[in-house]
Amino acid sequence: MLLSRQLTCCLQQNSRLLVFGHRYISQAAAKIDVDFDYDGPLMKTEVPGPRSRELMKQLSGIQNADAVHFFCNYEESRGNYLVDVDGNRMLDLYSQISSIPIGYSHPSLIKLLQQPQNLSTFVNRPALGILPPENFAERLKESLLSVAPKGLPQVITMACGSCSNENAFKAIFLWYRNKERGHNNITKEELESCIINQPPGCPDYAMLSFMGSFHGRTLGCLATTHSKAIHKLDIPSLDWPIAPFPRLKYPLEDFVKENQQEEARCLEEVEDLIVKYRKKKKIVAGIIVEPIQSEGGDNHASDDFFRKLRDIARKHGCAFLVDEVQTGCGCTGKFWAHEHWGLDDPADVVSFSKKMMTGGFFHKEEFRPNAPYRIFNTWLGDPSKNLLLAEVIKVIKREDLLNNATHAGKALLTGLLDLQARYPHLISRVRGRGTFCSFDTPNDATRNKLITIARNKGVVLGGCGDRSIRFRPTLIFKDHHAHLFLNIFSDILANFKNRNPGTSWSEPEQVFEQRL
Amino acid sequence: MLLSRQLTCCLQQNSRLLVFGHRYISQAAAKIDVDFDYDGPLMKTEVPGPRSRELMKQLSGIQNADAVHFFCNYEESRGNYLVDVDGNRMLDLYSQISSIPIGYSHPSLIKLLQQPQNLSTFVNRPALGILPPENFAERLKESLLSVAPKGLPQVITMACGSCSNENAFKAIFLWYRNKERGHNNITKEELESCIINQPPGCPDYAMLSFMGSFHGRTLGCLATTHSKAIHKLDIPSLDWPIAPFPRLKYPLEDFVKENQQEEARCLEEVEDLIVKYRKKKKIVAGIIVEPIQSEGGDNHASDDFFRKLRDIARKHGCAFLVDEVQTGCGCTGKFWAHEHWGLDDPADVVSFSKKMMTGGFFHKEEFRPNAPYRIFNTWLGDPSKNLLLAEVIKVIKREDLLNNATHAGKALLTGLLDLQARYPHLISRVRGRGTFCSFDTPNDATRNKLITIARNKGVVLGGCGDRSIRFRPTLIFKDHHAHLFLNIFSDILANFKNRNPGTSWSEPEQVFEQRL
Repeated sequence: MLLSRQLTCCLQQNSRLLVFGHRYISQAAAKIDVDFDYDGPLMKTEVPGPRSRELMKQLSGIQNADAVHFFCNYEESRGNYLVDVDGNRMLDLYSQISSIPIGYSHPSLIKLLQQPQNLSTFVNRPALGILPPENFAERLKESLLSVAPKGLPQVITMACGSCSNENAFKAIFLWYRNKERGHNNITKEELESCIINQPPGCPDYAMLSFMGSFHGRTLGCLATTHSKAIHKLDIPSLDWPIAPFPRLKYPLEDFVKENQQEEARCLEEVEDLIVKYRKKKKIVAGIIVEPIQSEGGDNHASDDFFRKLRDIARKHGCAFLVDEVQTGCGCTGKFWAHEHWGLDDPADVVSFSKKMMTGGFFHKEEFRPNAPYRIFNTWLGDPSKNLLLAEVIKVIKREDLLNNATHAGKALLTGLLDLQARYPHLISRVRGRGTFCSFDTPNDATRNKLITIARNKGVVLGGCGDRSIRFRPTLIFKDHHAHLFLNIFSDILANFKNRNPGTSWSEPEQVFEQRL
Repeated sequence: MLLSRQLTCCLQQNSRLLVFGHRYISQAAAKIDVDFDYDGPLMKTEVPGPRSRELMKQLSGIQNADAVHFFCNYEESRGNYLVDVDGNRMLDLYSQISSIPIGYSHPSLIKLLQQPQNLSTFVNRPALGILPPENFAERLKESLLSVAPKGLPQVITMACGSCSNENAFKAIFLWYRNKERGHNNITKEELESCIINQPPGCPDYAMLSFMGSFHGRTLGCLATTHSKAIHKLDIPSLDWPIAPFPRLKYPLEDFVKENQQEEARCLEEVEDLIVKYRKKKKIVAGIIVEPIQSEGGDNHASDDFFRKLRDIARKHGCAFLVDEVQTGCGCTGKFWAHEHWGLDDPADVVSFSKKMMTGGFFHKEEFRPNAPYRIFNTWLGDPSKNLLLAEVIKVIKREDLLNNATHAGKALLTGLLDLQARYPHLISRVRGRGTFCSFDTPNDATRNKLITIARNKGVVLGGCGDRSIRFRPTLIFKDHHAHLFLNIFSDILANFKNRNPGTSWSEPEQVFEQRL
């Protein structure tokens, strides 16, 4: 109690210094998006503040709330700024685990809700697969199909990222089995055995995935997720092949040959695994990969690696599923991160969710289920999310937000490289594409401290892997936001060097990053 | 073309006769909910009509649309009536696969959307597990916790039914492993092996399920789903135990002893399977069961069966997971169907979705994950659905809709029993609880014909199993709607006897029910 009061007192004294808009900000950062975005962070308490802590206790009575960072006032949150229940306003570079496309409370989305003709879409959620609304196909055309990846004209919507990948797997298994079967005659034995989970009806197919990948947390997805033990411990899984993902050395220009060798080693292992698993009668029907491994630590590989991987999939008759749940929707400067590979035939299936508001997957014609109800569930997504997405895509196009991501991302990456040069003991392996940037810290503890300090200075950051900090701002994150962040973070790093326990750099005891 | 024109012509002539509100309706059915519900079906074309068929073609270019029944005008749909894009207004006894709780366009829900303070909830979807809105705990209390099943004070929200069951399985596996481990020391071997899908980190645990069950379509759920081949064919699965579910003989009062024996046989098999699987080192961590098997054919078992099954779970240390995705939210006359069992400790975990607007599961304290991020995903449901649900529950309480379900269900069931007595060659095994009613037809073809004819007469019905018709009306389905339906259906059955191909009883060629 006393400690907590002292902390609060101490932080209140600090709060005057923490109004960064006035003290550290460069000229570029002073720009204001008048009627929408705020002009800078504004801190009133430590975070989580007293109101957040009170609410955490309440929520703790209902469910494990140890992952909660703080409670938010979404009504007051705008643009790139997240406002908490203690009145703190923070520049949000994490955007709800990369799931807010065009900022909080975007006027265009608010307007949609205010139009009487849209109300029905929010209260009458249909079973889309059997009783779609009149404008369903039209809305898919103006939203998802207007940004369909090259060569993938078919799309199925789902409610979340995990369901998107689960159903993409299923579409791949159906496709593979049809190919293998070579005809439409399904045997009685297949029909009967599948009901009781046995072959031949349930064939022993597998998806090949990569170490460090994250593709979701339901049982099928989880069998392809290999990022952190806490996601997988104590959950039964499937014996599916797992290939190594390249571990690139930075700066890339200094390790060209080593990195090429590393990528070649991983690709060789992919082929070996496909062959090895086929020998034990477990068929690799598809390969799933993220264009940038996100949850697993922002692990990049070269465009050349992915081009070769795509060729391997084709060579061995495996479907190539690109998981763009986190990399999709423009943050890398292209709408889909796989566009950077420059391929005519980049993928067979592409899954999405998060910033796309709705989950789902695009696929080639040949992956279209050959009968109704094979890829199906009650809701199959939610037309209200399709409505929001259509507007989001209009805003992305109207405001040229892909180019903005490239531009703002360059400002951010340049600044990070500069900080890396100045603080090499704290920052390494700076990397990124568009605003999808990250860097490594020396260890888990330092990473978590930096995130906590930044938060108390008015910047929300996210961690990934075991020591990385990832940037996942909205698409309306501009150069001036990058400069604003860089000024604040530069100051944090300057002070971090001399940091001693017991100073005013108080750190909440709550461990909010992933454990185990 | 000519045939189609003749059909249209014929149907237009019929349409005058098809205005049921005036011709066949009993006094009770004439009641009108003035400002919300319509007063009866109104048919203008066959269903699907020309506009629906045009839209089907459009959608077919984007995805397999063979499951689509027709396209809807949700703006014009109200209460128990679904309006299609050809202006046909149908009494809806299927309610989007049982997922519309208080009817279409309910004024209370529309009002919610119109309140400016709620707009933010619909446009700023948070990552609930890390950055919940201020009112999150409060909203859970006024919605989900206000209807929490006995003894289950903890709740976690999810986006859909499959994710609810997948995560309920995971919570059960964590619980079982903690129990088995007996301490908190996790070994290095466990941490390392789980990342690559291997034991001991990924133990060989299983969920026991029942033949005929439906628990979802993602890979984990699908391993416990055994209703139809089309759901499972060509998808790899897990070797998890599957027990027989009682196949009761009707009328129940004539087969008391046979049905008791049948239930005893199934329960014995459950115990045998648990023991048998343990012997081969596959541990049954939990049992999942629907209070009434829905998708699988509306298969009921006695309350006594479930009480004994619950005891078996307890005896063998297995978690008891009751899947109330379809049976929950009041349609059986109790908020949860398992309340009919009259147990003090009915379940360890209860999953929900559909009419609850949000997915999720309730559980006992002991099933609470022991660390953050173990049961987690980006969205963990959607606060906008919690907002709608809170209002739905208020309406259910205010309008006493549980008693209404009992009352209207009785009217429906009584009428169905009467029809069964009159048309025993067409209707058998009439059964139900609340409005959750169903009956069998002689075969798949007859069932599908009856559904098609009913639809063209202004009534939307759903099928389940291989020959059943199930009733899944909204909770505002009243006695007079039951009478309205019974009058229409009675007429259909009377005509069905003498039915010849080529008469005006035209049936769309489109097969909309499940195939294979």
